[in-house]
Amino acid sequence: MNNDLFVKMAINNWQGEIDAANKLLDELSDENLALEIAPGRNRGIYLLGHLTAIHDMMLPLLRFQQSTYPELQPIFVDAPDKTADAIPAAKQLRQQWKEVNDLLLQYIKALPADEWFTRHASISEGDFPKEPHRNRLNVLLNRTNHAGYHRGQLALLKKK
Amino acid sequence: MNNDLFVKMAINNWQGEIDAANKLLDELSDENLALEIAPGRNRGIYLLGHLTAIHDMMLPLLRFQQSTYPELQPIFVDAPDKTADAIPAAKQLRQQWKEVNDLLLQYIKALPADEWFTRHASISEGDFPKEPHRNRLNVLLNRTNHAGYHRGQLALLKKK
Repeated sequence: MNNDLFVKMAINNWQGEIDAANKLLDELSDENLALEIAPGRNRGIYLLGHLTAIHDMMLPLLRFQQSTYPELQPIFVDAPDKTADAIPAAKQLRQQWKEVNDLLLQYIKALPADEWFTRHASISEGDFPKEPHRNRLNVLLNRTNHAGYHRGQLALLKKK
Repeated sequence: MNNDLFVKMAINNWQGEIDAANKLLDELSDENLALEIAPGRNRGIYLLGHLTAIHDMMLPLLRFQQSTYPELQPIFVDAPDKTADAIPAAKQLRQQWKEVNDLLLQYIKALPADEWFTRHASISEGDFPKEPHRNRLNVLLNRTNHAGYHRGQLALLKKK
């Protein structure tokens, strides 16, 4: 009975997090993003690329479709900041961030409530009955929290 | 049918966030906590007090019981960092942080699944039927994300 409600709550939380991240990114210039969030730490642009890559990887993890920008993963997930020879420009990453989230949201909104309780792609059909919490909805909860973690860091780039 | 499962998922996410915060706090000395997370920004100790106060305020918000340390709210929620005349020592805040989370978890674990879909304390019984997502479980989802946001900032105090 509460399935619809719970799924709606989880999706609202996800969307609220994306909206907050977008609002923050609008307040940050490309010059801001080029700065480290704290001395010696990740640059803002790395975190933008990291979040874009992780959200892009949610497309296959949620069994929606393949990643749209798989080339971001080695740069922004597998490697730490300041180790890649070159990274995409902020302008391009902003565009990819928007595209990936828009595409994700289309799938998210279209998925029937009961389907959220089916397995995500990293657990086999054989193992899933033993670990039913490893479902698609749990991916959404986790990635909402992940986005918030890095948004707290990106917020440090705002002018005071 | 899935009530139990998604309440369990939300609680697991909360507990995972608290565990991660505790692990991080164990790695940070009181001297680390006295530092700003980035130049001119909040100090670690302020964020510890802030999280403790917000979690303490969850006790009445979730209709469990009254806050245990209401004196933290004016210092760590209503006022920004570096404006209070004096703040509690790190040692005391660490103790309060632990106590508040332990107490919360007892209530959280004891609450029957269906009860999570009842109203939280900031919405009236009259308004709740119109906004059924403003339930206790939504507070848990929100506060999990809030803790992650600040954990991302506290992580910057770790020695590299």
